[in-house]
Amino acid sequence: MNLKEDIKKVKQASIQLQGTSIENRNKALEEIIKALLEHKEEILEENHKDMELAIENNIEKAVLGRLKFDEKKLQDVITGIQDLIKMKDPLFQTQLARELDEGLKLYKETCPIGVIGVIFEARPDALIQISTLCIKSGNCIILKGGSEAMKTNKILFQIIQNAICLANLPKDSMMLLEARSEINELLTCHESVDLLIPRGSNSFVQYIMNNTKIPVMGHADGICHIYVDKKADISKVIPIVVDAKTQYVSACNTVETLLIHKDIMHEVIKDLKIALEEKKVEIRASKDICELIECNELSDQDYETEYLDYILAIKTVESVEEAIHHINYYGSHHTDCIITEDMQAVDVFMKMVDSANVYHNCSTRFADGYRYGFGAEVGISTSKLHARGPVGLEGLLSYKYKIFGSGQTVTDYASGNKTFHFKDITI
Amino acid sequence: MNLKEDIKKVKQASIQLQGTSIENRNKALEEIIKALLEHKEEILEENHKDMELAIENNIEKAVLGRLKFDEKKLQDVITGIQDLIKMKDPLFQTQLARELDEGLKLYKETCPIGVIGVIFEARPDALIQISTLCIKSGNCIILKGGSEAMKTNKILFQIIQNAICLANLPKDSMMLLEARSEINELLTCHESVDLLIPRGSNSFVQYIMNNTKIPVMGHADGICHIYVDKKADISKVIPIVVDAKTQYVSACNTVETLLIHKDIMHEVIKDLKIALEEKKVEIRASKDICELIECNELSDQDYETEYLDYILAIKTVESVEEAIHHINYYGSHHTDCIITEDMQAVDVFMKMVDSANVYHNCSTRFADGYRYGFGAEVGISTSKLHARGPVGLEGLLSYKYKIFGSGQTVTDYASGNKTFHFKDITI
Repeated sequence: MNLKEDIKKVKQASIQLQGTSIENRNKALEEIIKALLEHKEEILEENHKDMELAIENNIEKAVLGRLKFDEKKLQDVITGIQDLIKMKDPLFQTQLARELDEGLKLYKETCPIGVIGVIFEARPDALIQISTLCIKSGNCIILKGGSEAMKTNKILFQIIQNAICLANLPKDSMMLLEARSEINELLTCHESVDLLIPRGSNSFVQYIMNNTKIPVMGHADGICHIYVDKKADISKVIPIVVDAKTQYVSACNTVETLLIHKDIMHEVIKDLKIALEEKKVEIRASKDICELIECNELSDQDYETEYLDYILAIKTVESVEEAIHHINYYGSHHTDCIITEDMQAVDVFMKMVDSANVYHNCSTRFADGYRYGFGAEVGISTSKLHARGPVGLEGLLSYKYKIFGSGQTVTDYASGNKTFHFKDITI
Repeated sequence: MNLKEDIKKVKQASIQLQGTSIENRNKALEEIIKALLEHKEEILEENHKDMELAIENNIEKAVLGRLKFDEKKLQDVITGIQDLIKMKDPLFQTQLARELDEGLKLYKETCPIGVIGVIFEARPDALIQISTLCIKSGNCIILKGGSEAMKTNKILFQIIQNAICLANLPKDSMMLLEARSEINELLTCHESVDLLIPRGSNSFVQYIMNNTKIPVMGHADGICHIYVDKKADISKVIPIVVDAKTQYVSACNTVETLLIHKDIMHEVIKDLKIALEEKKVEIRASKDICELIECNELSDQDYETEYLDYILAIKTVESVEEAIHHINYYGSHHTDCIITEDMQAVDVFMKMVDSANVYHNCSTRFADGYRYGFGAEVGISTSKLHARGPVGLEGLLSYKYKIFGSGQTVTDYASGNKTFHFKDITI
C-alpha cells in the first residue's frame, strides 16, 4: 500500500463529498450515533487495553485522564453530535449577492476547504469531535491521533467510517494514520491535502510548519495575559486570575503572565499571593513586587515562556499602553484579558491588543469552541490569513473575538454550577 | 540604516493604525487625492524619465503600456479613491454577537491584518490602489514595485506618505523598498510582517512561497478553463471564448484550456477556428479535433501550461463529470466557466469545480476586484485558509465566487459599450 496514492483517493472523494446534501451529511451523523451505542462494549474494551498498556509504560497521570474513554465521555460526544445535527447547513450559504449588470449576477457562497489533516493528542473523544465536524462541513479528514490511544482510535475510526458509508458518503472521505512515521509522508502531500491542523507542543507545531508546503492552521504558543488596570474591581481579580491559571494548567488559553497597574498593585498583591499559594502556584515577579512579597525574581526569558505549569509571571506596568505594548511584543496573539471598570480603557485595550481573543473581566479559559457555542472545535487558530478570489477591502481584514464579562470563571461552568445559554443577540 | 529595524517600526505603527477612526482614514484618502492633483506635473515628469529609460533598455511593449502613467490613469485612480471613500468602514464590523450567559457577551469583530508586504509589477497605478486599499482597511503596507517604475513609484510614495501624515496617520504606516535585494531581507521578517502578496510570474511567486515563514496570499498559476457543454447555446460560445482568450492575453484569468463536449464539437469547432485565427490564436488540440481542422496536436504538458500567450489548448470530453475532473486535476483553482443552458449541469459544475471563481455563460476575465464591485483589488487569491480563534464549523469553510451570466464578455465593459451597475440583491 502506498500512502501517497491513498491520500490521493481522499482528495478525489473530497470532490464528491462537497456536493452532498445536508440530509446525507446529517444522516451520516445519525448513523454514527447509532453505531457508537451499538458497539459501546467493544469500544470500552479496546480503550481498556490502551489504558493498561499506558499504565504499564508509566504514562503520566494527565495523559491517562485524557486517554480514558468511558460511558460519560461517550455520552458527551453523542450529545455533541446531536447538537451538530441541529445546526443549519454551513455549506452553500450566500455571503454576498450582487447584480453586476443586467443578467450578470455574482454570489459568494461557502464551500468546504477540501482535505484536512489533523494530528492530535491521545484523546479518543477528539477523534469523534473532529470527524463529525468535518462530515457536517463536507470536508474529508486524515486523522493521526496519539499512539497511546491506538486501539481505541482504530475501533472508533472503523465504526465511524462504516456509519458514513450507510449514509452514502464516500468511504474514502476518512483515513486513519497509525504510524508516527506516516506524518512525514503526509507533510509532502501538498497536492492532495488542503490544510493541516497540528495540535500539541510548540516544538511539534513548529516542526510541522517548517516541513510542509501545506497551509497550517493552529497555534504554536499560548502565552496569554491578564492586565489588572488601576480601575479594576478588586473582587473580580482573584477569582479570574486563579481560574485562568489553575482551572486546567496545561491548556493553551491558561494565563502565563499577569500585568498589574502600579497604582493598584499594593491593594491586590498580598491577597493574590495567598490565593495562588493555596493552589500551589509559584510566583515569579518583577523586582518591585519581590520587595513586597516573598517570591522569585523573573527574567525577560519568563515573558516568552509558556509554562503549562503552576507558575505565574507577574509584572507591574505604568499604564494600559505599556500593558498593550508588552502583550503585543511578548504574547502569542492567542487570548488576553483586561480587568477594569473603566470602559475607555477596555475600548483601547480591545482595539490595540492584536490577539484572536480579547476579553474584559473574565477568565482567559473561555477561549474554546464549545464555550463560544460552536458545538466543538478542531483547534484554536492565531492565523489571520483567509481570503480567496479577488482580494478587495474585505480580504484585507481579519477578525477577533471579544468577550465582555462581569467576573466569570470557567470553573463555574466546568463544575456545572452555571450553564451557558447561547442566545444570538442583535446589536 | 537597517531594514529589519525599519520594518519593526512599521509593525509598531500598525498597532496605532488599527485603532484609527474611519474619519481619519477617509481624511487621509482625501489628502491623497488633493496631493496627487497638486503634484500632477512632477509625477508625469518622473514617469516620463522612467519611460525614456525603459525604451532605451528595449523593454517590451506590454510592459511599457503598464508603466506609462498619464492624465487618464491619474483620473482613473482618483475616481477609484473617491469610490473607496464612499465605502463604509470595513473595520469594527460585528460578524457575530452572542450572549453566552447572563453578563457574558461574545462578539466577532473585523480588524486589520496588520503589516502587509506587496511585491508588484511595474504599474504605478497599482501602487496607489494597493496603498489606498490598505489605508482604508487600517493595514500598514510595505511596497516593492517593478524596478522600471522606480522614479514614478518614489514620487508617488512620497506624496502619499506626506498626505497620510496630514490626516494624523503614523508616517511609518507605509514603507517603500527600492532595491530588489531588499526583497530577500523582507522575507526573513516574519515577526513584523503578517502577510505577503507577491504578484508576478509563477516562478517568482513560488520562490517567495518557498523562502519565507510569512503567510503568502495570491496565486502562482492561472490555468483557467471553459467547458462547452452539449447543451450550450452556440451563439454564446465564440464571443465568450474569444474574449476570455484575447481580451488581455497575459492576465491570470485568461482561458488556457477549452473543453468541448463531443456531442457539440462538430457544430462549433470550425467557426471557432475561424474566429480564433482572426485574432492570431494558435490552436493545440486533441487528436480527434486535429482530424477535423488543421492544427497542432497537444500533449499532456499543454494541460499544465499557463501560456500567457495567443495559444489555446482544446480537448473533447465525454461528460460534464470528465470536464470537472480535468479542471480539478490540471487547473490551478483560479477561474473556470461552463457554457450551457442546462441548469442541472451548471449546478453540478459549480458545486464540484474546486476553484475560487466558477462561472456560467460569461468570460473568465470577469475575475477581478473592480468587476466584482470591490473598487480595486490587491491581488487574486487561490488560498482557502482563513480561520482565527476557536475553529468550529465556520472555520472549516472556505467560499467561492459564482457568476451566472448570459454571454457577457469583458471587452464590452473595457470598451465602455456596457457599464456595471453593482446592485446588491436579496436572495
